[in-house]
Amino acid sequence: MKGLFVSFEGGDGAGKSSILREIGKELREQGYSVLETREPGGIRIAEKIREVILDPSHTEMDGRTEALLYAAARRQHLVEKVIPALNEGKVVLCDRFVDSSLAYQGVARDLGLEEVLKINEFAIDDHMPDVTLLFDIKPERGLERIAANQGREKNRLDLEHIDFHEKVYDAYQRLAEQNKERIKVIDADQEFESVKRDASHVLSGYLSS
Amino acid sequence: MKGLFVSFEGGDGAGKSSILREIGKELREQGYSVLETREPGGIRIAEKIREVILDPSHTEMDGRTEALLYAAARRQHLVEKVIPALNEGKVVLCDRFVDSSLAYQGVARDLGLEEVLKINEFAIDDHMPDVTLLFDIKPERGLERIAANQGREKNRLDLEHIDFHEKVYDAYQRLAEQNKERIKVIDADQEFESVKRDASHVLSGYLSS
Repeated sequence: MKGLFVSFEGGDGAGKSSILREIGKELREQGYSVLETREPGGIRIAEKIREVILDPSHTEMDGRTEALLYAAARRQHLVEKVIPALNEGKVVLCDRFVDSSLAYQGVARDLGLEEVLKINEFAIDDHMPDVTLLFDIKPERGLERIAANQGREKNRLDLEHIDFHEKVYDAYQRLAEQNKERIKVIDADQEFESVKRDASHVLSGYLSS
Repeated sequence: MKGLFVSFEGGDGAGKSSILREIGKELREQGYSVLETREPGGIRIAEKIREVILDPSHTEMDGRTEALLYAAARRQHLVEKVIPALNEGKVVLCDRFVDSSLAYQGVARDLGLEEVLKINEFAIDDHMPDVTLLFDIKPERGLERIAANQGREKNRLDLEHIDFHEKVYDAYQRLAEQNKERIKVIDADQEFESVKRDASHVLSGYLSS
């Protein structure tokens, strides 16, 4: 009895968090036991690490420090929350995982994809997602959506330049190309219901097997 | 104009911190510009990371999380404090550095020396110490010294079993064996003045060159 580990990835404004909630609801209605989570996921050590990362006053934060902190929060969340749920046979829907670090820190912050992969391999110790849904939308469209959504709180990362988001986009494309078996691309520049339908369709292949 | 980067290593109670202060004083009297430091070294991001690591209530802390946090604090301290001082031509005396992580996390916590080296290589990005002084004392003798010193505040790491400290000791021996060029072993089970004299003697070889 081993669950299914699904990560949700994409640039800001791709709508992945809303889709994740809808998919979770749908799977529960179908009788699956589901864990919806995202780092730091209420894990107190990971929450404290995240506070250090996202404090907007920490402008002196080095890129490598940030990448190590993300890897540390990831590790604790994985050990305390994800692995126990998988061992109980649950479907784990995780909002962002290792690919976010590769795209944001490895490529957009120029630390090197291979270098950031190394510290993440240490953090996850072979617990890669069984499948990753990449919600694909051009950065200018994603940022338009964020701007339209007044209720959303902005953090330090949202304030980055559009160039940064372009790099993230390109990195995700590259990762999808290099990991075709694991990463499934979903066109996110559609109506919400269509994006959700496409994501459900991909997942159904993993759940029925 | 490039300074000299010296790390001070050894198990708890080896006296390295006291010797470091004395050596710093001596070098200043000889006209050297000296930075005495230890992680987190007053660097606010590194201080916050250290608070998370050393909180005695964090008993659920995973070993890999801890290793990543030490690497993150190391990185920020290195970038904000050590590298600028070296660029100003200073002698940097650093109380514990990468070998502590290799001995404590890599070996004593069984994460694997090579694995922990990988994340530390990411953190230090080629800034290894020019010379490392290893203060060599058997763990039972070191812990006796700590017990005798009532004023010292105990943290979570001090509460570990003697077995743990034995593993740390063996790891340091192994590291010294594998890095003879960089790591110089000082017999720390002597009178304070003799230990200080031996440490000064080793350093003088690096300073005159």
